[in-house]
Amino acid sequence: MLYGGIEAGGTKFVCAVGDESGNIVKRDQFPTTLPEETMQYVFEFFKDFELKSLGVGSFGPIDINPNSLTYGSITSTPKKGWKDYPFLKTLKASYDIPLAFNTDVNAAALAEATFGAAKGFDSCLYITVGTGIGAGAVVQGNVLQGMSHPEMGHIIVRRHEQDTYEGSCLYHKDCLEGLAAGPAIKERWGKAGVDLADNKDVWEMEGFYLAQALMQYILILSPNKIILGGGVMKQKQVFPYVFEYVKLLLNDYVPFPEVSTNIEEYIVSPGLGDNAGIMGSILMGKQAYQEQL
Amino acid sequence: MLYGGIEAGGTKFVCAVGDESGNIVKRDQFPTTLPEETMQYVFEFFKDFELKSLGVGSFGPIDINPNSLTYGSITSTPKKGWKDYPFLKTLKASYDIPLAFNTDVNAAALAEATFGAAKGFDSCLYITVGTGIGAGAVVQGNVLQGMSHPEMGHIIVRRHEQDTYEGSCLYHKDCLEGLAAGPAIKERWGKAGVDLADNKDVWEMEGFYLAQALMQYILILSPNKIILGGGVMKQKQVFPYVFEYVKLLLNDYVPFPEVSTNIEEYIVSPGLGDNAGIMGSILMGKQAYQEQL
Repeated sequence: MLYGGIEAGGTKFVCAVGDESGNIVKRDQFPTTLPEETMQYVFEFFKDFELKSLGVGSFGPIDINPNSLTYGSITSTPKKGWKDYPFLKTLKASYDIPLAFNTDVNAAALAEATFGAAKGFDSCLYITVGTGIGAGAVVQGNVLQGMSHPEMGHIIVRRHEQDTYEGSCLYHKDCLEGLAAGPAIKERWGKAGVDLADNKDVWEMEGFYLAQALMQYILILSPNKIILGGGVMKQKQVFPYVFEYVKLLLNDYVPFPEVSTNIEEYIVSPGLGDNAGIMGSILMGKQAYQEQL
Repeated sequence: MLYGGIEAGGTKFVCAVGDESGNIVKRDQFPTTLPEETMQYVFEFFKDFELKSLGVGSFGPIDINPNSLTYGSITSTPKKGWKDYPFLKTLKASYDIPLAFNTDVNAAALAEATFGAAKGFDSCLYITVGTGIGAGAVVQGNVLQGMSHPEMGHIIVRRHEQDTYEGSCLYHKDCLEGLAAGPAIKERWGKAGVDLADNKDVWEMEGFYLAQALMQYILILSPNKIILGGGVMKQKQVFPYVFEYVKLLLNDYVPFPEVSTNIEEYIVSPGLGDNAGIMGSILMGKQAYQEQL
């Protein structure tokens, strides 16, 4: 049986077809342009397959409330043509199969819990630190969803005492994303993170901010595993600072060996590399197929 | 059919027997003394009932990992005699019925989602602000549990610029609990909250701290309803400050009418008053009974 997945990003779309064991049979990617053009590529990609279902892990914010009139739409984005785009409705018009629609990071969390770094656990947190900061979670085996999907990138952190940068978030100025996403690093230090690899101050400050966020996530969600992905996290030199600050901040309050002695195995890089989002999209589709059986 | 519940608090124990519809048939409470003495009252209370199950909503931190050797124990507490107390094991030795064990606040969240202020929703957050600050949550119909239960009272908040009080938390000094729980109010202002009802500065500052916590909870969990209980929240004059600061902090980032126009119906007092914890304990027991059928 074959299941389709779309990882819909603001920069590129990844489409893939996977089998029951999670093996990817075909995969392609193309730039995100205007919706109609982009969706033509999507339809073209899947046209030769008989899919059991199709799952979408999308950039957001998106409407994932099945009772909402705009369910399955992208709600607000600066990306031209995509604001209010009825993504799920467009797919429904072409595919008479079970469809799933959630955030790219919720999809990635599900894939990591199923096949990746959190395999064997029924909860995990997947955070991506790149152009923005987003996070998804699996709780008791399901992707986390309440009134809507999480927006964990915008939580409040305390400012680093050496940090004079005002912050880049359009809504909150100096929330986590405003202080620690890629654009903030670039604006604060005058260069992209990848060109600052040797500057310890950069990564100590980055670790300080990320650790505060992780502390909040740990205290609120108590995930079995925390996975840090995205472009910024490819700078592995930030991890030791994250470990150090998480321990310092929690101060042994949470009495778990995962944090106190094995933190390097608790806060980790993605097990699926850059494939978490697309594999999770396929998995969400597969779940939708199984639910309607 | 009758189900038993124990709301085990650090100050008092509440025991009750409820029927299938949530009606309480018998209820009693007694002070929390040493474990053996307290448990004698528990056994005495339930002795005339044929219970289908027994649920415990306990003060914490507790071990709720069924795979742990110390599952069902209170892990750390300053309360004399209760540190490492094998609560669940003690009950198991006397009752050959399904047992449930979780935090008092997770129990309260479940009760509010079933019968109370969040009835009809499959997610909610229940926060108690009293001697400490604790919170429980229901996510997709189940009480929130990962590696352990949440410890949301200890999250990081930014300090109010007028606040010179250092904070009372033994682990983190000026985390949320250290700045906004009852003892912090008393130490900072020299009087208990109940005697400061007319002092606007007290409640503006309290609202500032609670709103930051609520913002974090909203962005991370996206609950359908937020319920604020506990002794401090009986000072209703704090609610308008909470509303105002939550809106100010979120700054329309979360595009929900629940927050932007109906916040008074989104952030509310408990629907079950002080009964949420005991009703939730009974409900958890009932769930355990149904799961083993």
